[in-house]
Amino acid sequence: MAGDSTRPASAQGHVLALCGGIGGAKLALGLYAESGAGRLTVLVNTGDDFEHLGLHVAPDLDTVLYTLSGLADPERGWGRAGETWNFMEALGALGGETWFALGDRDLAVHVERTRRLRAGETLTAIAANMARRLRVAAHIAPMSDDVVRTIVHTPDGPMSFQHYFVKHRCAPVVQRIAFAGAEKARASPVFLDAIADPALRAVVICPSNPYLSVDPILAVPGIRAALERLAAPVIAVSPVIGGEAVKGPTAKIMKELGAAVTSKTIVEHYHDLIDGLVIDTADAADADRIGIRCAVTRTLMQSLDDRRNLAREVLAFADQLARERETA
Amino acid sequence: MAGDSTRPASAQGHVLALCGGIGGAKLALGLYAESGAGRLTVLVNTGDDFEHLGLHVAPDLDTVLYTLSGLADPERGWGRAGETWNFMEALGALGGETWFALGDRDLAVHVERTRRLRAGETLTAIAANMARRLRVAAHIAPMSDDVVRTIVHTPDGPMSFQHYFVKHRCAPVVQRIAFAGAEKARASPVFLDAIADPALRAVVICPSNPYLSVDPILAVPGIRAALERLAAPVIAVSPVIGGEAVKGPTAKIMKELGAAVTSKTIVEHYHDLIDGLVIDTADAADADRIGIRCAVTRTLMQSLDDRRNLAREVLAFADQLARERETA
Repeated sequence: MAGDSTRPASAQGHVLALCGGIGGAKLALGLYAESGAGRLTVLVNTGDDFEHLGLHVAPDLDTVLYTLSGLADPERGWGRAGETWNFMEALGALGGETWFALGDRDLAVHVERTRRLRAGETLTAIAANMARRLRVAAHIAPMSDDVVRTIVHTPDGPMSFQHYFVKHRCAPVVQRIAFAGAEKARASPVFLDAIADPALRAVVICPSNPYLSVDPILAVPGIRAALERLAAPVIAVSPVIGGEAVKGPTAKIMKELGAAVTSKTIVEHYHDLIDGLVIDTADAADADRIGIRCAVTRTLMQSLDDRRNLAREVLAFADQLARERETA
Repeated sequence: MAGDSTRPASAQGHVLALCGGIGGAKLALGLYAESGAGRLTVLVNTGDDFEHLGLHVAPDLDTVLYTLSGLADPERGWGRAGETWNFMEALGALGGETWFALGDRDLAVHVERTRRLRAGETLTAIAANMARRLRVAAHIAPMSDDVVRTIVHTPDGPMSFQHYFVKHRCAPVVQRIAFAGAEKARASPVFLDAIADPALRAVVICPSNPYLSVDPILAVPGIRAALERLAAPVIAVSPVIGGEAVKGPTAKIMKELGAAVTSKTIVEHYHDLIDGLVIDTADAADADRIGIRCAVTRTLMQSLDDRRNLAREVLAFADQLARERETA
């Protein structure tokens, strides 16, 4: 805004968020509210996608879509508000597979997406169209239109992400995580457009699981390299708070992979990629000793205000780093 | 039953019913109740099947399955009782096709059947398994495991059955009906087993639309010929009552094809195939002048008792014809 001295010119730019499912979508919602209509692109992990009951299920894309469109169930944390489960019940009576819960409304997204994929549309085009249909004024895009599948290697053998996460409830010890198909995948055109935008304000790595949700995105050839050479600041929000992860298996996996559950581990993980890390006030003491610029704020997102406040802090931090870079 | 002089030995035999959707399924339910557990095979029209939203939808198979399992909606006449429509509503919000109503529970059948067909199972095996799962003690089988599609030729061009029936609500004039793929189709093994059964008691052509629901079955090579040379009696129940058809487009199509809406037309249609016709009391005067043995009874099926009574009359008529044949 011309003449607004409290807001840098870059504040009108575009924000690119990298995001997995539930935890990441919370910050994406904050960024959606704080970055301005049409100024947010969310690049979403599709390593968790899987074929189930003959349908293409894309859990993280749907979580982001439901969250930004206001359709998400705020209490359950996944799926749609006011959902019904009559399909699942009827499927169970037929002896079908019911370990992965698909709500009646949610099913519409899977059936329609599968139909359109089979008709030759790309996941990128379908995600954009669904977001538009549900009146989301942000770009929601898969990391790639090619098939990349997260494989969790455990003492019981390799398993797909959903088998690890839902069927086995993250119980198996994680020895190694691989992204099948990543080496041949191409980044979504939406990503290429976003990083080519001269008005790109910041890239935000949401506090999703670094190993399971962000690494698949970074495994797509070209994405990590493009982010490393970007002029705009790249900021990560640490998923670690006081030696624990807020939700999900992040802390458990960090331990199983032999890493300390600290923000320092997160910095090392995103080494060379990020310009700054946002950490929680509980870890304020780490700020000066983890070898990267830090912003300290409340990172636990319980209310919508928490999401917006964190998004505002993240963007202010990014704008500050951008200003420093300009004047350097 | 030994020593039961009111009941012929054949009454313990198997009944084979040929059937389309709603009207036919009503009599199939009566036959299910009257023929004894495990003694009924329902061979169902699949000419109305279609691929919709990427799913294999088999409306007549499902109507029979829901009717015999007690899951059918008794008032609406199709689909399942207590059905919900949240999938359709969500699909509409995404811009998906909503002209063909798929209930949330109903969808489980389509998704599961489609998955199993893609995995290589036959429609016959899937229908048998679903009937067993839903505790139906009758054999429900498609006429064929091969793809046969009813095509309605109209002045607006050819259209698939569902487009004619649901999307255009039977409004276009029917010039001709064709069964694409029929010439290469093979009868379901369940049909072959049923007619090879030496204890076959009767074949019943239900009062389904002769042109749209029964002709596709008879178009499968071998079915008509096998029925013509059968020792057991073949009985049709006329769908015409007093110059009108009870429901659906039967009378309209008969007129458009230049046929009188009478039971005589039905006899001519099933020429050489049937040994007897069951007609309604309203048409009692026709009994002696339509050139075939007739049984006259109430054929309108409103209550469950109506269904059972008609089934009982049909089987008694068949048993009588069989006895006469034996003593001839």
